[in-house]
Amino acid sequence: MRVFIAGIDGYLGWPLALHLSSRGHEVGGADNFLRRKWVEEIGGQSAIPIFSMKERVDVCKRYFGQVRFWEGDLRDYVFVSQIIKEFRPDAIVHLGECPSAPYSMIDVHHATFVQTNNISTTFNLLFAVRDICPNAHLIKLGTMGEYGTPNIDIPEGFFEIEFRGRRDRLPFPKQAGSWYHLSKVHGSNNLMFACKIWGLHATDIMQGVVFGTKIDEMDADERLLTRLDFDQFFGTSINRYCAQAVIGHPLTPFGKGLQKRSFMPLRDSMQCLTLALEKPPDAGQYRVLNQFEEVYDVTELALKVQRVASQLGLEVEVSNLENPRVESEDNYYHPDHQNLFDLGYRPTHNTEEEILIVLKDLLKYRQRIEDKKDLFIPDVRWNIGRRSKVKFISH
Amino acid sequence: MRVFIAGIDGYLGWPLALHLSSRGHEVGGADNFLRRKWVEEIGGQSAIPIFSMKERVDVCKRYFGQVRFWEGDLRDYVFVSQIIKEFRPDAIVHLGECPSAPYSMIDVHHATFVQTNNISTTFNLLFAVRDICPNAHLIKLGTMGEYGTPNIDIPEGFFEIEFRGRRDRLPFPKQAGSWYHLSKVHGSNNLMFACKIWGLHATDIMQGVVFGTKIDEMDADERLLTRLDFDQFFGTSINRYCAQAVIGHPLTPFGKGLQKRSFMPLRDSMQCLTLALEKPPDAGQYRVLNQFEEVYDVTELALKVQRVASQLGLEVEVSNLENPRVESEDNYYHPDHQNLFDLGYRPTHNTEEEILIVLKDLLKYRQRIEDKKDLFIPDVRWNIGRRSKVKFISH
Repeated sequence: MRVFIAGIDGYLGWPLALHLSSRGHEVGGADNFLRRKWVEEIGGQSAIPIFSMKERVDVCKRYFGQVRFWEGDLRDYVFVSQIIKEFRPDAIVHLGECPSAPYSMIDVHHATFVQTNNISTTFNLLFAVRDICPNAHLIKLGTMGEYGTPNIDIPEGFFEIEFRGRRDRLPFPKQAGSWYHLSKVHGSNNLMFACKIWGLHATDIMQGVVFGTKIDEMDADERLLTRLDFDQFFGTSINRYCAQAVIGHPLTPFGKGLQKRSFMPLRDSMQCLTLALEKPPDAGQYRVLNQFEEVYDVTELALKVQRVASQLGLEVEVSNLENPRVESEDNYYHPDHQNLFDLGYRPTHNTEEEILIVLKDLLKYRQRIEDKKDLFIPDVRWNIGRRSKVKFISH
Repeated sequence: MRVFIAGIDGYLGWPLALHLSSRGHEVGGADNFLRRKWVEEIGGQSAIPIFSMKERVDVCKRYFGQVRFWEGDLRDYVFVSQIIKEFRPDAIVHLGECPSAPYSMIDVHHATFVQTNNISTTFNLLFAVRDICPNAHLIKLGTMGEYGTPNIDIPEGFFEIEFRGRRDRLPFPKQAGSWYHLSKVHGSNNLMFACKIWGLHATDIMQGVVFGTKIDEMDADERLLTRLDFDQFFGTSINRYCAQAVIGHPLTPFGKGLQKRSFMPLRDSMQCLTLALEKPPDAGQYRVLNQFEEVYDVTELALKVQRVASQLGLEVEVSNLENPRVESEDNYYHPDHQNLFDLGYRPTHNTEEEILIVLKDLLKYRQRIEDKKDLFIPDVRWNIGRRSKVKFISH
């Protein structure tokens, strides 16, 4: 299968390129290195050093196969349509969006940038599929955060309900919790409409929080490793906790710490995206997959990381921070995720096993984390934007 | 009350400025004349000649009061924040969005423009309210088209439902039918979130299709008249039917013509916006008002226009066109609209009475309509964008 990856240089994009190549798929992708630039803008760095795309592609070729790469801006339709014409993909995986909630909450400029960037890259891919390769399967990365935390179960995209004596099957209402998460809601709505009016077939992946340092294919050569961010903007919770643990920094749940979220290791994310690619929906179908392995509250997770770290002789405290976000800190959370299991998803490890791998990997990069540990503590608040850093909550 | 109107030069913006001035409110507004430019871009013209903003403001001052005007781009936060600081409004009415479904369906560039423009102007107003005048009431113009046509009743913004034995009050799912309508969904979602995290109070107006040539205040001087578009892009259905009738052109419902939509005369739209302004929601409340008077299918409307036109000696056929849109042509449609009646809305005329006024007014501008009658027939199709004009359906 010829698979085009929009955003191939990112945390998920690069592992996906490797994983698909190793399975014999023909992979191409585009990137403008915006993720590298955003992390630089906020003063961060990846805990794991990453290599140039040229080097990545060269090393990948040696082990798994040729990956074609185009450097350019996915907001530019001329660029997008030219490469799609040239590559003629059977499937497109859209990872070309800005993925950070706190980054989108900095100020009006970042809010506008994140939403207009994400809308524009999505439109360019949608129109390119319509006009150039209408039979290509488009997989778009959404987030479980699109749903927010309703007081009822969360189905996969749609639900059938009764209201005043009549029934309908409707899109499940979204209550996203940041300008970034809302950008993903906007994108899902646009994607669903494109399937309806143009007969495209697409999969909208409502992905939980992904964590992990690697997939098996990266064991071949360290130049194949993907980035691992741990700053307040681009670091996701388990990755941040693990980075904190390896330098002895307290683990920092926000607020009460009983916020329940859904999680999945990086290697399982690759497994699931591959399943979605290899088992596409029918023509005209807008398919929604809730993609996560398990649900935990963020304190449970911190305690898990603490426990596993202690097996490695790393003793760390769990110490809650003032919550910079506006969110329920103790929510009902019951999302479905049967569709992926029906497609064949089998979790590789349990969460503790994966955390152990992450901690061992990150121990090699202690100094790089130490150098930027200042970025563990958020200074972007949902209510007022960027101010002073939040404080630890004293008990 | 000091009211700021974003998009004060438009079809609704200018009448609102007059109506509020005549009620003694202090009115200011901004515009970049984009509506004039869009209509020029697509080769159209307003049936009713409109005057420069300078002239409008001068004449308004003579009859009703001083309207302050700033020319500039609402996508520019520096511009927006400066004028909001200067004017210090008690309320803001956000009409500064591109309002055309077909315009958004032309191609990828128009789709992206409409959505990013509408997101950007909305963000700038939201952040200006948060940072400069957090107690100001923000009224944003949405559309009944955000809901689409579900097979159940449409409540005003929220509904309480049961799902798998649990209950919640949730935002009503939106199934908008064009990139433009989706831009309004995106805006509503953003507005709801801003109220939640920042405690703003806002009214989101789900407005039906507005028609009509005037409000009472315009009788004073023809230089006070507002625009009336009748082209495929910016002309709404009753206005287009009336423009067709006065030059003897067939009235042109799309497809089967049983699409049900909600409608409201321009003068009632002004009455309702004023009610919403003068009776704001509580602090922190995101209030949704479904704003329309009556529900008709588009053939019923064409027959109404035909009947009223015939009273004026204008005999016209009703002749259906191929439907350029992808939509259900015979839908269940039961939207609530009690909230505005509870606020005090009393319809001024019935639809026939208002149609009679429109036809009489437009008779004066027959030649201007005749000159551009080519633009009655759509050439933008929902499935493929801009192509040849659609054909009449032969029976």
